[in-house]
Amino acid sequence: MTDFMTGTRQRAPAARERRGAVGDAGPAPLDGQEAAALLERTRALVDPALRAALDSLPGAMRRIALYHFGWEQADGTPAAGNAGKAIRPALVLAAAGALGGSRARTAAVRAAAAVELVHNFSLLHDDVMDRDTSRRHRPTAWTVFGEADAILAGDALQALALRLLAEDPHPAAGPAAVRLADCVVELCEGQHTDTAMERRAPDEVTLDEVLAMAEAKTGALLGCACALGALYAGADEEDVAALDGFGRQAGLAFQLIDDVIGIWGDPRRTGKPAGADLVVRKKSLPVAAALASGTPAAAELAALYGTPYAAGSAGDGGEITRTALAVERAGGRDWAQTEAADRMARAMQELARAVPAPEAAGGLLALAEFVTRRST
Amino acid sequence: MTDFMTGTRQRAPAARERRGAVGDAGPAPLDGQEAAALLERTRALVDPALRAALDSLPGAMRRIALYHFGWEQADGTPAAGNAGKAIRPALVLAAAGALGGSRARTAAVRAAAAVELVHNFSLLHDDVMDRDTSRRHRPTAWTVFGEADAILAGDALQALALRLLAEDPHPAAGPAAVRLADCVVELCEGQHTDTAMERRAPDEVTLDEVLAMAEAKTGALLGCACALGALYAGADEEDVAALDGFGRQAGLAFQLIDDVIGIWGDPRRTGKPAGADLVVRKKSLPVAAALASGTPAAAELAALYGTPYAAGSAGDGGEITRTALAVERAGGRDWAQTEAADRMARAMQELARAVPAPEAAGGLLALAEFVTRRST
Repeated sequence: MTDFMTGTRQRAPAARERRGAVGDAGPAPLDGQEAAALLERTRALVDPALRAALDSLPGAMRRIALYHFGWEQADGTPAAGNAGKAIRPALVLAAAGALGGSRARTAAVRAAAAVELVHNFSLLHDDVMDRDTSRRHRPTAWTVFGEADAILAGDALQALALRLLAEDPHPAAGPAAVRLADCVVELCEGQHTDTAMERRAPDEVTLDEVLAMAEAKTGALLGCACALGALYAGADEEDVAALDGFGRQAGLAFQLIDDVIGIWGDPRRTGKPAGADLVVRKKSLPVAAALASGTPAAAELAALYGTPYAAGSAGDGGEITRTALAVERAGGRDWAQTEAADRMARAMQELARAVPAPEAAGGLLALAEFVTRRST
Repeated sequence: MTDFMTGTRQRAPAARERRGAVGDAGPAPLDGQEAAALLERTRALVDPALRAALDSLPGAMRRIALYHFGWEQADGTPAAGNAGKAIRPALVLAAAGALGGSRARTAAVRAAAAVELVHNFSLLHDDVMDRDTSRRHRPTAWTVFGEADAILAGDALQALALRLLAEDPHPAAGPAAVRLADCVVELCEGQHTDTAMERRAPDEVTLDEVLAMAEAKTGALLGCACALGALYAGADEEDVAALDGFGRQAGLAFQLIDDVIGIWGDPRRTGKPAGADLVVRKKSLPVAAALASGTPAAAELAALYGTPYAAGSAGDGGEITRTALAVERAGGRDWAQTEAADRMARAMQELARAVPAPEAAGGLLALAEFVTRRST
């Protein structure tokens, strides 16, 4: 299962062989093509519901939301659209389909749109708090419309999300809204922990804390997406919990890979400078594991992370390379890759519990693979 | 009906006579005592649901929320509690009671808590955007916990509000959640308009815009509170709309009175310096009406509002007194008081449409009176 977490776009030949060549029309091939097709079908199903929801917003809220989703320019003229990969709504639909077939999948479209709205509400707010200036290759909403309007547009998207479920007559809509609201609270606590940890010294942050934060910030919504799909398929509590576990573990695997890429990713593939996460002294999972290793390299890393870079020296290569090497020598890279494989194995176990038939589980597997292989 | 909008705590003798002396035990006396008793009963009914909801939050979100509600100090020790007047939940319960009796009132407790959570979510966010440093005689949450955490706690409160309705098995809970979510969107657009107007020149803001903003920011949630109560009483669409109209119009009357107090309120009663709204050049309703009057005083006012105060001169008396006089001579004060009376009359008409029996309408009337007479 190591191919789940290579951290690059290249597929291992063994995996390719096992699954048939790209373009193979066999049943549920676990390659990027199936995921890409699923994501495309998801956009076709969910985008109309999303657009209708955004179009229901009043003037300024609609303008900011359509800009954030990539459907409009800042001046209100139409844009080609780059509203993200729709992984979360695809998980909702794939989970509904896996447990309830095409009827459940169709019934879950509103829930899929609701999950995507929650995701985008949290992006709008996180970008304000993290002072991120770029998102999906465009200036973030707060840099264009101001902080207040970005906060308000996020608030409106959260309301829209829960409104979509409140007006859905499906019997799963109520329990789905409860889960989605709980997930919002978990996202908030996760974001709080993340920003609070950034202010603490490297040796004051434990690996367990970083793992819990990653689960809350990344795993929770992927788990919630899968759980909502299961609810719309009429699954029992146990299967809903298993699907939630599948999404959470896959989300953690994704975060581990993403953190490996944030240190060792190829700038030509990531579009970010080498060691981007090290430049901003991010307490990512490999760094936290390295710091906790008790090795001499851990002490070196703590010293490197504990002192500010000299002005102008950040990202110049020497210091970043030395920091990356310290993380690696302290075992941070190996740990992250092993942990990602372990999380992916746990995800598979959870999935097999609820969806034993491989042909039914195919879509969810393809999506889980897709998110843990992305390099940007 | 001028006694609805005197803008001070003093009750006109005529009104006192009409309604019986304070303490009179007659049916539905429209005095402050009935409102105070209603608010106290509301707190007793709704606080346990609110506390349970806040206690369900994880660590940091709970701490910030409990501080904001006045139930904890910043360090987590218990506080005496000053969670506001609970006017909105009282309106939910009074509306439910007026249309459906005590059973409906009891059934609507969760909805009442949800409305109060939405109110507090919007306060947390508005305080961040408006840079307000004091709320309910304590430092605002963002000044204590930072902006990011105040935003996150607000997000969590919105989620909690809609969660309360999502888990409520009452048949009104779904339509109530739709209305509450719509109200959140309206609050957001209102807050956007407010902050956007503050950046515009005085003569670029029309009275209609300021009225629409006040309806969105203040009227919408009071209307929503009453509408939710009606929904829980099983009222038909027409009565729900009438109750919404009652709350909206009463909310506008309240805002008009509040704006009059912001200019001419007695500092000993308001706890704010004289002309507080003029000092910050707030485009309040009396000011907007004065500017739109086409009088020589309007031109004077536009000039006064259009130039920054000399450093240190704001609030020194002379300039503020002159500005207040200009608003008054341009007719802003008279307009606001007449408009408040008119809005209150419209509120009464809406209420009479849905609740013709005076004894049933008494609670709602008492609350509407209470909110339009407050002086702080």
